[in-house]
Amino acid sequence: MPQKKKKFIAVIGGSQCSLEESKLAEAVGSELARCGAILVCGGLGGVMKAACKGASSEGGTTIGILPGDSRRQANPYVQIPIVTNIGYARNTIVVKSAHAVIAIGGSHGTLSEIGHALQYNIPVIGLNTWTLSRNGQLEESIILAQSATDAVKKALDLSTN
Amino acid sequence: MPQKKKKFIAVIGGSQCSLEESKLAEAVGSELARCGAILVCGGLGGVMKAACKGASSEGGTTIGILPGDSRRQANPYVQIPIVTNIGYARNTIVVKSAHAVIAIGGSHGTLSEIGHALQYNIPVIGLNTWTLSRNGQLEESIILAQSATDAVKKALDLSTN
Amino acid sequence: MPQKKKKFIAVIGGSQCSLEESKLAEAVGSELARCGAILVCGGLGGVMKAACKGASSEGGTTIGILPGDSRRQANPYVQIPIVTNIGYARNTIVVKSAHAVIAIGGSHGTLSEIGHALQYNIPVIGLNTWTLSRNGQLEESIILAQSATDAVKKALDLSTN
Amino acid sequence: MPQKKKKFIAVIGGSQCSLEESKLAEAVGSELARCGAILVCGGLGGVMKAACKGASSEGGTTIGILPGDSRRQANPYVQIPIVTNIGYARNTIVVKSAHAVIAIGGSHGTLSEIGHALQYNIPVIGLNTWTLSRNGQLEESIILAQSATDAVKKALDLSTN
Repeated sequence: MPQKKKKFIAVIGGSQCSLEESKLAEAVGSELARCGAILVCGGLGGVMKAACKGASSEGGTTIGILPGDSRRQANPYVQIPIVTNIGYARNTIVVKSAHAVIAIGGSHGTLSEIGHALQYNIPVIGLNTWTLSRNGQLEESIILAQSATDAVKKALDLSTN
Repeated sequence: MPQKKKKFIAVIGGSQCSLEESKLAEAVGSELARCGAILVCGGLGGVMKAACKGASSEGGTTIGILPGDSRRQANPYVQIPIVTNIGYARNTIVVKSAHAVIAIGGSHGTLSEIGHALQYNIPVIGLNTWTLSRNGQLEESIILAQSATDAVKKALDLSTN
Repeated sequence: MPQKKKKFIAVIGGSQCSLEESKLAEAVGSELARCGAILVCGGLGGVMKAACKGASSEGGTTIGILPGDSRRQANPYVQIPIVTNIGYARNTIVVKSAHAVIAIGGSHGTLSEIGHALQYNIPVIGLNTWTLSRNGQLEESIILAQSATDAVKKALDLSTN
Repeated sequence: MPQKKKKFIAVIGGSQCSLEESKLAEAVGSELARCGAILVCGGLGGVMKAACKGASSEGGTTIGILPGDSRRQANPYVQIPIVTNIGYARNTIVVKSAHAVIAIGGSHGTLSEIGHALQYNIPVIGLNTWTLSRNGQLEESIILAQSATDAVKKALDLSTN
């Protein structure tokens, strides 16, 4: 019950994704649940759905911060649908509600979430996601992970906030 | 685990409140938990804290949709803190995430939430809260309840959405 | 050009309204423009459109804070469309961007805006709008006006913030 | 007065910036004003302030979509301050209110805005800003410009929406 003491980890990525990304997201979700962390995501399909499926399969808790105006928009593995109706402005809430963020693949929405997380000094762990550089220099704020297990370990280790 | 099938009921009211309102809110929270509903609120003090305390005491789940930028803002009985950082614009999310809303006392923030809920056709049950009229006619959209138990019963009965 | 020094006055009311309300809103818009104030509104039809029409007819500036995802949603008299795509959460921005608010008629959305304005200590002038009471006592925060001219005068007099 | 027909161009970049970026932003602002476009920005310092200064010096109109709760937060060249109080969620409104976006330098907030703009299919013109790649492939959605004049020309040419 004192879930507030638990770690909240956001998993971000495309609402459409490759089979490989889906498997990775499901493994991340499962591992998060096994570690006792609560999964936060945007509540839709693709990476979000796979992560929620993985977490649910291990008895974990899943939160979906939805952009639209109905909880019916949530994927079937979201247990706690938050209906924001504020469109992609909800991306800021997904990352702000998390101690750390794991980015898997992803398109421009994921890019915006990475930007918001770094803007808020929330750790971002990357799995096959965006590579950023400024003035020819690699942005090193995204912490690279080698596997689902590695990503979860790094996310939890950095969840001090 | 299939909490998505569960009813989400928002309890709204002042972050400062009278002892009577606090007792009423705690009773509403307890009754919601006994009925298997999940409590949604703004996550702060006063009516929100009392409702979360009541729900927690009966083993219920409590969600706090926070206006500020830190989960530390949540009252100690919030289990799922959602950190919006969008100020009172979060009031729309509190009501939109609920099947029905129970208003207890409350000041202008509560008034805005009642307005948003009615705007979205979400049922509002009132306990000693605002009375509204237009052109000399009583607004009958707020359903009056006589007690905590009555409010919860009406909220759940109207949670068809 | 130093419009920042100018007064920003929000006109709120239903997106559908009576002919009487429409005439009142147009008169308020015209008077605001004659007084050199800038009109802020939700950018849609009804009271908002009439107020923008009145302001435009007198050479005033009109800002529409739109709830949806396209500037095409704006009424034809909006000169500065702000496209929020955050739904009715934009109601908070309409009132927060104003020194004072004039409410004309209005339904539940207007009620939410009145609540937000009072929550933020922004003066609200009422013309045939909601009457509020708590515990049998009339809420006196809404300042009643007798005419469009009276409403604009009171709004500007109270715009000290 | 029919400013709605005018082009709204967002200029995004850091609230702190180099002298070179500041000069570039001021030149972009001036050129936008000479071309009759309206400047939209986040309303704060750095690139935003320089762009507003440039636009104002040429008689242009400047809009500042502020994250905080007061219009006093706006830089002195903002003529139309929009007070959102929704924090960095306002980044989505900055880009959504524009026909095209010009990014100058910038840090993580700018990155989030680039992500949101591309997510919404709003053209992004880049001047010494982020370089993005996925899976080793350069993201080509950001249109590179060689100068302030070039950036404004490209932004206006792409403002068909």
